[in-house]
Amino acid sequence: MTNSIAHPEVGAEFRALRYEPDVVHLDSAAAGRASRNVVARMSEHLEREARVGGYVAHAEAAETLERGRAAAAGLLGFAPHEVFFTESARSALLALVHNMPVEAGSPVCVAPSEFGPNLTVFASFGLRPIPLPVTDRVGHLDYEASAEVIARERPAFVHICVHPSHRGLVQDVARLGAVCRAAGVPLIADAAQSFAHIPPVLGADAVYATSRKWLCGPRGVGVVGVRSGLLPAKELLLESVEANIAGRVGFAVALAEHLTLGPAAVYERLAAIGQVARARLHGAGGWSVSEEVEEPCAVTTLLPPHGWSGRDVQGFREALAAGTAASARIVTTYLGPERAPLEDAPGALRISPHLDVTERHLDVLVAALDSA
Amino acid sequence: MTNSIAHPEVGAEFRALRYEPDVVHLDSAAAGRASRNVVARMSEHLEREARVGGYVAHAEAAETLERGRAAAAGLLGFAPHEVFFTESARSALLALVHNMPVEAGSPVCVAPSEFGPNLTVFASFGLRPIPLPVTDRVGHLDYEASAEVIARERPAFVHICVHPSHRGLVQDVARLGAVCRAAGVPLIADAAQSFAHIPPVLGADAVYATSRKWLCGPRGVGVVGVRSGLLPAKELLLESVEANIAGRVGFAVALAEHLTLGPAAVYERLAAIGQVARARLHGAGGWSVSEEVEEPCAVTTLLPPHGWSGRDVQGFREALAAGTAASARIVTTYLGPERAPLEDAPGALRISPHLDVTERHLDVLVAALDSA
Repeated sequence: MTNSIAHPEVGAEFRALRYEPDVVHLDSAAAGRASRNVVARMSEHLEREARVGGYVAHAEAAETLERGRAAAAGLLGFAPHEVFFTESARSALLALVHNMPVEAGSPVCVAPSEFGPNLTVFASFGLRPIPLPVTDRVGHLDYEASAEVIARERPAFVHICVHPSHRGLVQDVARLGAVCRAAGVPLIADAAQSFAHIPPVLGADAVYATSRKWLCGPRGVGVVGVRSGLLPAKELLLESVEANIAGRVGFAVALAEHLTLGPAAVYERLAAIGQVARARLHGAGGWSVSEEVEEPCAVTTLLPPHGWSGRDVQGFREALAAGTAASARIVTTYLGPERAPLEDAPGALRISPHLDVTERHLDVLVAALDSA
Repeated sequence: MTNSIAHPEVGAEFRALRYEPDVVHLDSAAAGRASRNVVARMSEHLEREARVGGYVAHAEAAETLERGRAAAAGLLGFAPHEVFFTESARSALLALVHNMPVEAGSPVCVAPSEFGPNLTVFASFGLRPIPLPVTDRVGHLDYEASAEVIARERPAFVHICVHPSHRGLVQDVARLGAVCRAAGVPLIADAAQSFAHIPPVLGADAVYATSRKWLCGPRGVGVVGVRSGLLPAKELLLESVEANIAGRVGFAVALAEHLTLGPAAVYERLAAIGQVARARLHGAGGWSVSEEVEEPCAVTTLLPPHGWSGRDVQGFREALAAGTAASARIVTTYLGPERAPLEDAPGALRISPHLDVTERHLDVLVAALDSA
């Protein structure tokens, strides 16, 4: 696969930057594998904190952190002064909603594929989710019909997962942004699954993401871009002064590596990997692919053969991870219905390889699916 | 000093666990210096994440994390199932208030020494701070008079910094807890400055703290203990599922080291260090100590000689840190009035040595104060 699809040199470079993995890691949509340099720079920062104190080390890292902010701003489509570091995508969403002048009981328009934990956040503020209409069983929004719903409901804001967590589905955020601007309603985009994976989202008033997935930065770091003027003056609560600074250093290093690999080449190769993987995996052992083969993303969602329960899929995922279902340990994610409660999606297996995936990795997985 | 005050062996052990510092670090109330082992275990976890993926590494660390939870529970005075990991003390406070059934406009009773950024959090929820009465210029609460104010105001909750950030002052939380229980009002205690520094707080309904100060764990980790029944069922938002797991591993290691040093010996030695330092520093170069010499904590707050502005103190702090004010770089903290806006406290210099402080460190500081 390294040589048969777009930008094999990017796959090779990505692999060269990393430790030799101890597993077949097809789980970047959960957490990507950081490079050796990201780990080293974070470890150096932790040692520096232990030698001179956390705040002196922080001051020494200021330039690295601001370069990271600028790089994140570029990928999010905001100016550096509109970008804030958070602890996770979820903490960014909590801070955004907390800082917006929304009233309990207000509606929020979302796609039916909205991420369950985001719905929990909305509920904690007393907001009511209103699903927008879609055009197909995969869940692509119907933008014209959505415009009517938005105009009728006058929601506090529209919230969209650019790429949901339980299916390889890419929404057209630019188009939704135009709909929202016409209606005078703010659009907030959850880019946790799309950041450093598919081309940047433009057209939303706020976009938030995480370091740890496709960017392969550390856990415990998120980022949010907010259009100036969206929030009242309370924006200070968006960026924590006290934070995991070693993590932010690692995030900055991962951003620099992503820019060096070349974002356009990364997006193209990841989309091509997804297309090859979906074509290869569809039908293996009676499993079927949930999204369209051509969807421009690296995720494959496998629905189990007839008669399998969600619990069966979960057990199979555990057997893959433990190394008892194939000739190697294969790390994937079980997708339960709680990820998309508005859709009542069936249990599924998510395969999310990164740039370094090879034919052999897919062969091992196909063999496991065939013999499951 | 190592040999002249309580538990010199604890000071020696604390020093042996650490890197030789590159500075005279008198700043543990900002961020304590982690041990070599804390840094090593975090670095190992980061490498493990890069080899097998973040979630596999997380599962492997489960036992370490639960031991950390149990250790933190013991120090906070809660059961392990009542303890949640957060990203910082501030994120714990935000999550607590967000999960409490409080209405905008409600009063919250606080000490006049309440931490400024906490007041910002209260304001973001529309809560009105009501200062409780104190008995002296240092700011110890008047518990009898406070009981009357609490009974009259019926606040949504009482919030107390066990040890505020801008003065070496220890409040009697057990006594305040009794007052609050009698009034049927919840008590929330901010233990950021007291955790692993002074004996545990008992008597509050929720207590939150940070890893990075006196415990010398990593930045980006906080912890909160919440009495069962205080919150409605939304507690799930208290602990982030997605988080800085390497940091939580470091927190667990730092907790284990604290328990091995012996919490009682640590508290006694830190209190003795504070008493020796305050006696030594009071009057040096015309600076005066803001708290009582006998206060049972390690912090010394120095008010500048007559005629110095806050900006002068800030400049002196910078000169100490840069190594231009003394024969070594000395790390301390400048305390601006924004730390305690209800008190309108003057600018001051905070000295917060840890268990490894020596006579020589204080000598260097005294020389700098004398020649300032």
